[in-house]
Amino acid sequence: MKRSGRLVALTNFFLENPRVHKNLPSFSEKYNAAKASISEDLDIIDQLFQDEGLGYLKRTAGSAGGVMYIPESSRNNGIAFVKKLCERLMDPNRILPGGYLYMSDILGEPSTVREIGRIFASKFSDLEIDVVVTVATKGIPLAYAVASFLNVPVVIVRRDPKVTEGSSVSINYVSGSSRKIQTMVLPKRSLAEGSNVCIIDDFMKAGGTINGMVSLLKEFDANVRAIGVLAEADDEEEERIVNHYTSLVKISNVDIKQNFISVQLGNFIE
Amino acid sequence: MKRSGRLVALTNFFLENPRVHKNLPSFSEKYNAAKASISEDLDIIDQLFQDEGLGYLKRTAGSAGGVMYIPESSRNNGIAFVKKLCERLMDPNRILPGGYLYMSDILGEPSTVREIGRIFASKFSDLEIDVVVTVATKGIPLAYAVASFLNVPVVIVRRDPKVTEGSSVSINYVSGSSRKIQTMVLPKRSLAEGSNVCIIDDFMKAGGTINGMVSLLKEFDANVRAIGVLAEADDEEEERIVNHYTSLVKISNVDIKQNFISVQLGNFIE
Repeated sequence: MKRSGRLVALTNFFLENPRVHKNLPSFSEKYNAAKASISEDLDIIDQLFQDEGLGYLKRTAGSAGGVMYIPESSRNNGIAFVKKLCERLMDPNRILPGGYLYMSDILGEPSTVREIGRIFASKFSDLEIDVVVTVATKGIPLAYAVASFLNVPVVIVRRDPKVTEGSSVSINYVSGSSRKIQTMVLPKRSLAEGSNVCIIDDFMKAGGTINGMVSLLKEFDANVRAIGVLAEADDEEEERIVNHYTSLVKISNVDIKQNFISVQLGNFIE
Repeated sequence: MKRSGRLVALTNFFLENPRVHKNLPSFSEKYNAAKASISEDLDIIDQLFQDEGLGYLKRTAGSAGGVMYIPESSRNNGIAFVKKLCERLMDPNRILPGGYLYMSDILGEPSTVREIGRIFASKFSDLEIDVVVTVATKGIPLAYAVASFLNVPVVIVRRDPKVTEGSSVSINYVSGSSRKIQTMVLPKRSLAEGSNVCIIDDFMKAGGTINGMVSLLKEFDANVRAIGVLAEADDEEEERIVNHYTSLVKISNVDIKQNFISVQLGNFIE
């Protein structure tokens, strides 16, 4: 195959297979090209990925030599994207009873969800995450987006135990918003003990739901290495019970009477 | 920018932006290259995409000239992928009470989910789908995967009405598996009237859940153009109430006593 075709094929391979290790001879064989030519292809792709803020190719030396695509969102790309998101969220028509914001339209856009996932995955790139955990329902697409860039599976905690999942571990927790005791459940076979976990959710007020997930994950001896929430919002009535987390946006003031919302960049820029 | 860099940049653009129309002059300007050179780049990319069974570039003539990437899974790629999926599903350890199969591990793999989405999106490529609709919880990742290739949003029907979504339309339906009357709800603002809809779900027995979604969507004057389910299974006690659908796999025999499952290719190959 000629270089031009190889560049297209290799670019496709890396984008579809982030964090998958491949040695150069396997590419050599597949594309019927010298190892030196493949190596030059990789230099070209690496340079372009870095220029466009898409991440980089991680090369390993040695007799075989290997390569892996590490997707990243550059700081500039990330901030530009989240600023636009803030503007969209400040639309007063989004205000819902209880100080919530209507975000389902934004969370329904696959390309937006993917960019959010790219930013979290960049932040958590070095944490050796084994699995992304979320709770049904709205965090699910975000969790898959993060996981697709980290090349790890997703595990979904449910609020309703389903009979179709086998034996499960469940805990009760107090939801910050409703102040009700709720249940969370995770099938035993869904998570290996001692996994490095990243928790992803769409929204956090006091943090009761995330705290519940942390408690549930303790039952699996999991190491919670990172917590990512799309939006954090102050809860005037309750102090936050989750301290270490990454947020993309911060909703600081939902004034139903004045029909006004204030949305700023979250702590991901720190 | 040189051709080599342009090929990488353009390949990335098309893969990240399926079904987005771009005119050639915008690429010309962005990459500081003659329109004829860009046109040659597109020929190279189109050829490689077709050779690898990834879809094709749809070119439009005219003074400006335009291009759009239509992602498709070739028939051979699709069948090879689903055959492997069948093998994994036939593992007797997956048998759960009630004749269900444990599939959460497979549905938790972002790359597997993406391939499933690619196959459905190929099937429904010409149906002018406006939105992908699914019901919480397990169909959600599949719905996003399909939607990402069709470049349309996802709308999630919920079984539990949430206060945080504004006014809603709800219907009651009879679930085939539990025979209970259940509720489905969709916020009014989440779906425009008259939309062309594709329904996606993970599992279908008699089809009560999907039939419920069809009824709910009628309230929005939606046109259900396609129904896609990952797995269909026979329900011995009840006749199927959904007739036109596309399935990737067909589970024909879950024998708990003999510890045996039979899984075949679904009707997507027809």
